Amino acid sequence: MPSYNPPLRHMKFVMHEVLQVVPALRELPTHAEIDAELIDQVCEEGGKFCAEVLQPLNASGDAEGCRYDPQARAVSTPAGYAQAWQQFVEAGWPLLTAEPEYGGQGLPHLVGSALHEMENAANQAWAMYPGLTQGVLELLGAHGSPQQKNLYLPRLASGEWTGTMCLTEAHCGTDLGLIRTRALPQQDGSYLLSGQKIFISSGEHDLSSNIIHMVLAKLPDAPEGSKGISLFVVPKFLPDASGQPGQRNGIFCSGIEHKMGIHGNATCQMSLEDARGWMVGEANKGLAAMFVMMNGARLGVGMQSLGLTEAAYQNGLAYARDRLQMRSLTGPKAPQQAADPILVHPDVRRMLLTARAWAEGGRFLAYWVALMLDQSLHHPDAEVRKDTADLVALLTPIVKAFVSDNAFQAVNECLQVFGGHGYIREWGMEQFVRDARINMIYEGTNTIQALDLIGRKVLMDGGARLKKLGRIIGQFIEAEGVVESMQEFVNPLADLATKVQKLSMELGMKAMTDREQVGAAATPYLRVVGHLVYAYGFARMAKVAQAGLARGGDEAFYQARLQTARFYFARLLPETAMAIRQARSGAASLMDTEAVFA
Amino acid sequence: MPSYNPPLRHMKFVMHEVLQVVPALRELPTHAEIDAELIDQVCEEGGKFCAEVLQPLNASGDAEGCRYDPQARAVSTPAGYAQAWQQFVEAGWPLLTAEPEYGGQGLPHLVGSALHEMENAANQAWAMYPGLTQGVLELLGAHGSPQQKNLYLPRLASGEWTGTMCLTEAHCGTDLGLIRTRALPQQDGSYLLSGQKIFISSGEHDLSSNIIHMVLAKLPDAPEGSKGISLFVVPKFLPDASGQPGQRNGIFCSGIEHKMGIHGNATCQMSLEDARGWMVGEANKGLAAMFVMMNGARLGVGMQSLGLTEAAYQNGLAYARDRLQMRSLTGPKAPQQAADPILVHPDVRRMLLTARAWAEGGRFLAYWVALMLDQSLHHPDAEVRKDTADLVALLTPIVKAFVSDNAFQAVNECLQVFGGHGYIREWGMEQFVRDARINMIYEGTNTIQALDLIGRKVLMDGGARLKKLGRIIGQFIEAEGVVESMQEFVNPLADLATKVQKLSMELGMKAMTDREQVGAAATPYLRVVGHLVYAYGFARMAKVAQAGLARGGDEAFYQARLQTARFYFARLLPETAMAIRQARSGAASLMDTEAVFA
Repeated sequence: MPSYNPPLRHMKFVMHEVLQVVPALRELPTHAEIDAELIDQVCEEGGKFCAEVLQPLNASGDAEGCRYDPQARAVSTPAGYAQAWQQFVEAGWPLLTAEPEYGGQGLPHLVGSALHEMENAANQAWAMYPGLTQGVLELLGAHGSPQQKNLYLPRLASGEWTGTMCLTEAHCGTDLGLIRTRALPQQDGSYLLSGQKIFISSGEHDLSSNIIHMVLAKLPDAPEGSKGISLFVVPKFLPDASGQPGQRNGIFCSGIEHKMGIHGNATCQMSLEDARGWMVGEANKGLAAMFVMMNGARLGVGMQSLGLTEAAYQNGLAYARDRLQMRSLTGPKAPQQAADPILVHPDVRRMLLTARAWAEGGRFLAYWVALMLDQSLHHPDAEVRKDTADLVALLTPIVKAFVSDNAFQAVNECLQVFGGHGYIREWGMEQFVRDARINMIYEGTNTIQALDLIGRKVLMDGGARLKKLGRIIGQFIEAEGVVESMQEFVNPLADLATKVQKLSMELGMKAMTDREQVGAAATPYLRVVGHLVYAYGFARMAKVAQAGLARGGDEAFYQARLQTARFYFARLLPETAMAIRQARSGAASLMDTEAVFA
Repeated sequence: MPSYNPPLRHMKFVMHEVLQVVPALRELPTHAEIDAELIDQVCEEGGKFCAEVLQPLNASGDAEGCRYDPQARAVSTPAGYAQAWQQFVEAGWPLLTAEPEYGGQGLPHLVGSALHEMENAANQAWAMYPGLTQGVLELLGAHGSPQQKNLYLPRLASGEWTGTMCLTEAHCGTDLGLIRTRALPQQDGSYLLSGQKIFISSGEHDLSSNIIHMVLAKLPDAPEGSKGISLFVVPKFLPDASGQPGQRNGIFCSGIEHKMGIHGNATCQMSLEDARGWMVGEANKGLAAMFVMMNGARLGVGMQSLGLTEAAYQNGLAYARDRLQMRSLTGPKAPQQAADPILVHPDVRRMLLTARAWAEGGRFLAYWVALMLDQSLHHPDAEVRKDTADLVALLTPIVKAFVSDNAFQAVNECLQVFGGHGYIREWGMEQFVRDARINMIYEGTNTIQALDLIGRKVLMDGGARLKKLGRIIGQFIEAEGVVESMQEFVNPLADLATKVQKLSMELGMKAMTDREQVGAAATPYLRVVGHLVYAYGFARMAKVAQAGLARGGDEAFYQARLQTARFYFARLLPETAMAIRQARSGAASLMDTEAVFA
């Protein structure tokens, strides 16, 4: 059975030593009182909850899965899930980042992200229930009417109620313009919704007394395609006059999916049978509103992936220390035993360091983006808000796709460390692989993320957002390029930054004459830009580690950080040599003729 | 539910048009009578059996799995498995490549490989039962005494009995020198074996009337480590005087594993409780003898991986033609429908072509090696036997590891084509991923394959085997380098061949002073050499396709082959730019200090 220890030391390293989040957050009026002790205490307590309550339910929840009762149209979650939710609610965890106006603690997204990382490392299937609830909180907070906010936000923030997003239908997931769910306006200002949704995570379950569904549907007179989508809030139970769950609404679970992984999360088919809903935001502008929740969910997938990467790494490392097999190529390292621990073997180390580098790089990226999200929402200076919002927008597809692709690689490397035992359920490594696989798919496939990055986030504004990232990295290169001990990190970073700039311009030129070029280059392009951000992160982390070593104390920790950075530059960054060639190879080898698929 | 159509056209293309196997096989006295019609007929009939009998049991076998009865210490295979085995036996398929002396049809390994590809594409879990039986046939054929051959080979060849290999124990898989199973010599020349084995594929089941276990064990006076291992044949039922299964022998299944995939194959814990066995080959030389079966199994893993790649590709392509979602970036391609088939999108094509290229390249490699295996066994010229045996030895770890790594990538790309549906069991794509995952592990992890390639197969003989490969490729480059239409394929091939030569020499030099360098470079080195062979294969296939187009007829087929080759050189070969940098990066970033894992 796998174990999980919240990586508090590294989390603090990234937050306090590298990103220096406390002074940055204190510039925000909403967080002027924050201090490191509070952040650390939340991480420690949250980590304890994840390790002690959620992690023990991970394997059992996978084995048991959710059950659907077709008579009652009800879903039971695995044993222990509902109790864990109750404990989570009683401890006040759902309130963490919610606005104080609605009873929340109003802590920064950064702190929420740290908690999400640990929840997902412990139990991704369970963590999806609060994750989606958090998304509904943000969506209604941004687009709900005052009445909707007053009704729903306090109960979602407290965890009394949970939430979902209902987008996909059987015939469309990516292409939401094709949805068929209809909303008929009623005299009282409400709507009656009818249609069938699929793949609704947490759509029905036994954790909370009510479930608040955010549903995309079309009005009778809606324009065709994605410009005719409206957003509705559809509660499972209609709140009565006192705001308590009252009459059962016409939104029912009609079945759950049997999936490769995340068995503990109910993936529901939802049937809307004249379900009463209320419009959120403006008519026909539902898709844009929904993007508040989708962007949050995309960052959330990054945290899921980061969590799984860390958990797999920890267990892979523990096994490699424990398992005795063969001798080191340079002679016995544990001569008193029948064989050496497999950690002595270079290729085992390669696998483990791959996972560790993806974890550490992912943590830098995810926390950095979370901090900038807080800044984009609350910084007093409008320019800072704009700049950080631009960077969050640019980096969101990278958090979603780069971190989830890397996570899948990482969990597979860690499974491999176990040899045959990695393939056996009781060791838990294969669950990480099965769970991690969904992250490359949902909340917009990684292809969609890649198209979002190159199309909307880079080319659409003529590279303006990318230049903002380039300036930040350029400043770092300029400052550190003269420091001898930093050359091994800064030189490849500077080299890659130049290449990204050239590649982006080249693809922009090509795109003007042939749109297929964008689609053909998108996936490797995202890999290249992802590496640029990680190379920057590892260089920054190496700098802090060098300073820590110079300061003295905690030597093993800082040495290990330098080692991860060196490994990253030696072994992972070279992927850019491949990806740049792929991105430059054009569309011809893909698009040539119809005969291509003969 | 997935479907499977044996890719007969491409199989024939590789066998007849590219490898020209018929004239090559006719040089072998054992196969002087072979003709293309016979080969094709076997492939067609075998493919029919695989598609009609085995494939329909693939998903149901996965869902049902094997069941263990602890009272009877017996295993039931999924519904339909035993009947399919009966049909397989009655149709004479196990006899295909077995020696005529023991009732076999004596067809070349090449033909057996084609059948194995199709069996595994249809149902890997089922195909493992005959696969291991075939391995025992080869092992006893090579090392059994005349008496053992007469007793076992006819019944294994007919499929009346099946076989297993019992190597792994709980504390050792890679490091077989540590095994604890003991064999006590008896007065009658037999041995009594006791010990515990794990991960024994097909170790117990209800397909056949007897199971013949090939067991590694130690004699009481055996030297330590891998030089003290002997090999024994241990039947489940002791054959009586007439050779029929008689008394139950003391080898029992004590449990089966719950695995990520290949649920239809029983992965058994085997308990030897004074089981009677007979030594095969010489005392303490069991591991070397076992390598006959292990090498066969490694080639078999390549066929498993090739099969899964092909099956996943076919289903991914069918879905991409069928699923309507979004419009082509260059305007509607199916304007009469609500959206275009997703096959119009460049990134979907990238995913599918990745799988197709891995399938076509893998088929070239696997069939080429199978042909050379036949030549190495039966060619009248000793030098040809030696050369082909050297090449088979060199390429075996590439067939095992390169094809299985590529297969995992391919099945994941094809799952991704399905979006969220790929994650749902009923579509069958996630089963391909779960099944394919074992291929990177068993029969020697891919790390072991990489170490075998660089250590034993390349450096140990000073690069002699690699030079033989280089000469073949060099001749092709010389002949085709002057053909203008071949430049796009020959130039990158020649470039890579030079790089492989330099890289191999460089690593050989480094290895002299630091053994860790070998381990540190092994995995990326295998990727580079694998690409060299595929680049050669795709160039050869492109040449034949060009000739086919010049000849006229079957234009769509030959155009598609050129397209795959172009895609390979544009999109997959660039991995070598990454892998060469990784292989050259040395051991320091892996091995530095103990602090590395703080």
